[in-house]
Amino acid sequence: MKNIAILGLGNVGLAAARAVQKAPDMRLCGFIRRSGEGLSEFPGVSAAASVFELSEKPDGVIICAPSRLAESFAAPLLEQGIFTVDGFDIHGEIFGLKKRLDVSANKGGAAAIVGAGWDPGLDSAIRALLLAAAPEGVTYTDFGPGMSMGHSAAVRAIPGVKDAVSMTLPAGFGAHRREVYIVPESGADKKALEHAVLSDPYFEHDETAVRFIENTDSVKNTGHGVSLRRFGVSAGTGNENFSFEMRIDNPSLTGQLLAAAMRAAFRKAPGAYLFPEIAPAELLPDFERVSGVV
Amino acid sequence: MKNIAILGLGNVGLAAARAVQKAPDMRLCGFIRRSGEGLSEFPGVSAAASVFELSEKPDGVIICAPSRLAESFAAPLLEQGIFTVDGFDIHGEIFGLKKRLDVSANKGGAAAIVGAGWDPGLDSAIRALLLAAAPEGVTYTDFGPGMSMGHSAAVRAIPGVKDAVSMTLPAGFGAHRREVYIVPESGADKKALEHAVLSDPYFEHDETAVRFIENTDSVKNTGHGVSLRRFGVSAGTGNENFSFEMRIDNPSLTGQLLAAAMRAAFRKAPGAYLFPEIAPAELLPDFERVSGVV
Repeated sequence: MKNIAILGLGNVGLAAARAVQKAPDMRLCGFIRRSGEGLSEFPGVSAAASVFELSEKPDGVIICAPSRLAESFAAPLLEQGIFTVDGFDIHGEIFGLKKRLDVSANKGGAAAIVGAGWDPGLDSAIRALLLAAAPEGVTYTDFGPGMSMGHSAAVRAIPGVKDAVSMTLPAGFGAHRREVYIVPESGADKKALEHAVLSDPYFEHDETAVRFIENTDSVKNTGHGVSLRRFGVSAGTGNENFSFEMRIDNPSLTGQLLAAAMRAAFRKAPGAYLFPEIAPAELLPDFERVSGVV
Repeated sequence: MKNIAILGLGNVGLAAARAVQKAPDMRLCGFIRRSGEGLSEFPGVSAAASVFELSEKPDGVIICAPSRLAESFAAPLLEQGIFTVDGFDIHGEIFGLKKRLDVSANKGGAAAIVGAGWDPGLDSAIRALLLAAAPEGVTYTDFGPGMSMGHSAAVRAIPGVKDAVSMTLPAGFGAHRREVYIVPESGADKKALEHAVLSDPYFEHDETAVRFIENTDSVKNTGHGVSLRRFGVSAGTGNENFSFEMRIDNPSLTGQLLAAAMRAAFRKAPGAYLFPEIAPAELLPDFERVSGVV
């Protein structure tokens, strides 16, 4: 039984806590959050502002902080021998982060799983499996419909925007459209806000529609999904067709996968690993006991 | 560069040979088959009736023999330090085979991948991933339409049957129907043949239609497929929906996956492993070099 703490208590942190609490081989031993306050949903689980103030030292910490902060939290934990998992989701920077955390992990004799959400994460593992199944070909990943956290945050950072939600809509074969719902500050110039969105690097490459609303609660929905397809060649034979689709609650699936990756970390030699470097069996408590998997 | 030999040269063996020949990190170094004869498609690749008669000792052997014979071929190779992969496909016996080959593999300091086709194999890895993503729920695997090798062989073994093909038809949510096409021996009693099929353990649990034809060539097609669905719960939240589908050429996909598993074997510590115990990245020559996977 491994003692696990959750760092950060947004939607994903909450889901990760629930997943750990339901796991037969992990025990939720603490929350790490700025306020240092516990949650009524988890009576008896201690909380503190830093891992070193928790009443018991965790074996592992699931980092549910924004991607840009993940490294600053993970590196010192790993150097202290505490295993980590994060949901780092900036695709282009993931190998660099892995290499840096690999150094920290080896220093502390711990293991880190980097980018353990659903994309990067679960989808990455499936893309790797399909690439092995058909080495020549093209894979298309279509996201949504669903809220994009990164795009929503980019719009909220525009001066004059009170609140915003950005929806990702699949336009087929890797292309996406965006729908941005904005609650403007009173007196804000709507034309200027629209222009600011359309010229933002997050949006300038995609067809984007901007809509003004009074309250984002009316459009918020944590449902999301993906359609991942590969058309390829196996052993020289073409017309191999693969498709993976899911419709899921975004924070719940993310938290569940982070918890599964936490379990896998304890089965690894010291170092940092990406999600496709985990064997699927390592994500399960005891896969030989589950009939029907193999 | 690893030297790989193929044992058995049916449809799957041929596909595995083609997959190895296209791989950047493996070299096709020999065929092991009763006749000891090479193939014009692979000039310069030696052939022999046993591995010990090949002109060079392989680092690994891909066993493309019937499931019931896989162990008798794999065990002595592993004990000699030669890595093996097989496509053993009897679900209920796979853990037992793994445990026995684990002993042989550890004796020889080699690794074996057991059950490395597409089901068991690829599908097993995906079922394990989806179980990690939604620990509560039900997974349904629907096969076909496609020819079943095992069912076809069972029909051909019935006295009075000259040739036969058995099609697997998905009836939804894990249930299947069968269509059996029989070329009878001249003078055979068709009613008796039909009765023999319907009372065979391979067929008695499924709705089965028996049809008599003159030549199985008219119905043979190596295309096959699967629809694998999971409906489950992630971190306490229900309505998580996952679907994996493929339409593929059966021997080509099987041969390609066996070759990928062969590569993975060389990355493992001595022992025997099932396909879900391989990390997806281990199936690829160098997954960090392929953009878009992670």
